[in-house]
Amino acid sequence: MRAEILAVGTELLLGDILNTNARYLARALAGAGVEVYHQVVVGDNAVRLREQLEASLARSELVVCTGGLGPTYDDLTKETAADLFGLPLEEDAGVLQGMEEYFLRLGREMTPNNRKQALVPKGARVLPNPNGTAPGIWMERAGRGIVLLPGPPREMEPMFRDFVLPALSARTGKVLRSSSIHIYGLGESYVEAQLRERMLAAQNPTIAPYAKDGEMLLRLTAMAESEAEALALIAPVREELVARFGEAVYGVDVGSLERALVETLAAAGLHVATAESCTGGLISQRITGVPGSSAVFDCGVCTYANAMKEQLLGVSGETLSQVGAVSEAVALQMARGVRRLSGAEIGISTTGIAGPGGGSAEKPVGLVYIGISSDGYEEVIRACYPARGENPRESIRGRAASQGLHLALQAARRLAERQ
Amino acid sequence: MRAEILAVGTELLLGDILNTNARYLARALAGAGVEVYHQVVVGDNAVRLREQLEASLARSELVVCTGGLGPTYDDLTKETAADLFGLPLEEDAGVLQGMEEYFLRLGREMTPNNRKQALVPKGARVLPNPNGTAPGIWMERAGRGIVLLPGPPREMEPMFRDFVLPALSARTGKVLRSSSIHIYGLGESYVEAQLRERMLAAQNPTIAPYAKDGEMLLRLTAMAESEAEALALIAPVREELVARFGEAVYGVDVGSLERALVETLAAAGLHVATAESCTGGLISQRITGVPGSSAVFDCGVCTYANAMKEQLLGVSGETLSQVGAVSEAVALQMARGVRRLSGAEIGISTTGIAGPGGGSAEKPVGLVYIGISSDGYEEVIRACYPARGENPRESIRGRAASQGLHLALQAARRLAERQ
Repeated sequence: MRAEILAVGTELLLGDILNTNARYLARALAGAGVEVYHQVVVGDNAVRLREQLEASLARSELVVCTGGLGPTYDDLTKETAADLFGLPLEEDAGVLQGMEEYFLRLGREMTPNNRKQALVPKGARVLPNPNGTAPGIWMERAGRGIVLLPGPPREMEPMFRDFVLPALSARTGKVLRSSSIHIYGLGESYVEAQLRERMLAAQNPTIAPYAKDGEMLLRLTAMAESEAEALALIAPVREELVARFGEAVYGVDVGSLERALVETLAAAGLHVATAESCTGGLISQRITGVPGSSAVFDCGVCTYANAMKEQLLGVSGETLSQVGAVSEAVALQMARGVRRLSGAEIGISTTGIAGPGGGSAEKPVGLVYIGISSDGYEEVIRACYPARGENPRESIRGRAASQGLHLALQAARRLAERQ
Repeated sequence: MRAEILAVGTELLLGDILNTNARYLARALAGAGVEVYHQVVVGDNAVRLREQLEASLARSELVVCTGGLGPTYDDLTKETAADLFGLPLEEDAGVLQGMEEYFLRLGREMTPNNRKQALVPKGARVLPNPNGTAPGIWMERAGRGIVLLPGPPREMEPMFRDFVLPALSARTGKVLRSSSIHIYGLGESYVEAQLRERMLAAQNPTIAPYAKDGEMLLRLTAMAESEAEALALIAPVREELVARFGEAVYGVDVGSLERALVETLAAAGLHVATAESCTGGLISQRITGVPGSSAVFDCGVCTYANAMKEQLLGVSGETLSQVGAVSEAVALQMARGVRRLSGAEIGISTTGIAGPGGGSAEKPVGLVYIGISSDGYEEVIRACYPARGENPRESIRGRAASQGLHLALQAARRLAERQ
């Protein structure tokens, strides 16, 4: 089965918003075994929308549209699609009632404009929208279909997942399953160079690399007629790749560094504490972003000023004046200090220069010391991250945070093994 | 002038990555006065790519392509486009030399595959790529043009900005300028309902609303033949809207809450400190994400455990046991405590239930107390945020952080006014 994704909205054409809907739908359709060869964006313009629907239906059995279902006069996706299929619009009593209840629940008044949203092409299937006012529409004619979904992701995603995906999966009879290998400490280009031929040759499962903040993830995705069959296709390839990247693999299907850390600590009854300077709270924020982290995280401090490093963490004033805050010695004292302060078994620290100002020849922007302190295992890593991308400060902070989390994960595993 | 955006890449079709390039190019092209009516994504497939190029060139003067310029056999954008224009590929000595230098700089070996990237359609303009190996290409035939850009954003964006945009701006003779009104404390739907007719009527400047983490931004964008003319078009509309939303407007063109806060504090020589519980370091991370924040931020603490709230912030154990950590009294004591600890003029605190677990009938998920303490102005706001979207925990934390930053901004302005 072949489908394409058509997003309607002038705000997308102007680049005002990212087309996250296209990505969501692309993944979901692939996951249901539906082939997608085109994604298109057009504005809220009836002529170009109609032309595009015609062109899309000429090459694909199904066009999944998002956006343009709102109450105002420039929302015309439904009108245009109904006209193309020759279906008159009729007020749907069920939709109208649902909308009235929705407004009542929000304590807002329903405007006459909203009534337009209760119009449905004759004979089309209505897709309920518990998260907003515009219902979805699924219409078919002569073996071709158009699905109309609302633009806001929090309305579109549940509607697609609950009312469109099951029907498509049933039609294709295919399931897609993925498994992720998490790698830390190998450069993205190194991993890609190592795997280039392997990735190109891989068909089922496919192998896709993703990189972020110094982490890498290899996602293996297999399509089959059952979940068991898909997982059986994945298993040997996963085993091969895990062996190939050895020590650099920190987990399989563990979600993220912070999730792996929180789960390892929770299972062993251990705690971690953070003492951040240049990362400014990013590490504690990533840890506490994991549900259940309160069982393993009592306290973090963000000591930007030297005086606070001394006062809260007991960093030596002498060390600070001799080697400066951005130094191996201070990183180690910070990690030890926050352990002492919090009673946690593991302390993480960062101190560095995130830029754009504050760098020197000796201590350039991007230089970060990342420290770890735990019983029997202490380490400080000196890293110099490149000032990359649109926001180099964020990139440097993100990589330093990942390094801290990875060190903490290693420390947690050592302690857990000893138990 | 009319252009369209064509992204090439199977990873986009599968939804493996977000099409951030389309958004970047859409904004940049609009900014140069170029009209864009279509964005398209196709995979690394010569037949469909060629069909799409033909369809796009039939309706637009210029097609801006990203992706598919890599060294492997499935990268075929350049070959397909050159073939369509009937241009043979020839090795470009300058490009080859640039690539050799690039690999030397990285200390990596150039593979035979990479040599393919030095092939250039005869007569085409080469766009240098200081951030990678694939050069860009600009080819024209019979008044129609194709621009080929690499897929990685950190290669594509500087190339477009430096070598494509200036030429396009010169052709259109138009400039686009924007100005943003920052609003806090009014619901997104309220602002949109208030402005719906106004936004639809607005042509030049246009008015576009954006919402994130409880903040709203109205962006006014005008197109004119000079910067001065564009700004003159914006000014009266901005004045009208600022007056309309009154107190809720916290700034014009200030970037973000945290940037407005850091700049206000820096100008007045003031400091802020954070005592976070449920936001887990998010507020300190947002503040320290602003370059230069070290002048106004000395210290933040993230006290997840009650014992740490007592030990570090001096929160009363009696209060904790009587009303619990998630309470107005504790929020106020935390804000006061971190002021005392750090010596900052302003303390921000948060304590709440970010979920998904930990809620009760009395204290549900989403309940957050956000406190502020400063000389002569203390306040605690009780908020109950909805558990929305794909990651409700992040949504609740994000909104609580914004509320804390907004309270701090108000406190900073009060203190600055008194000086």
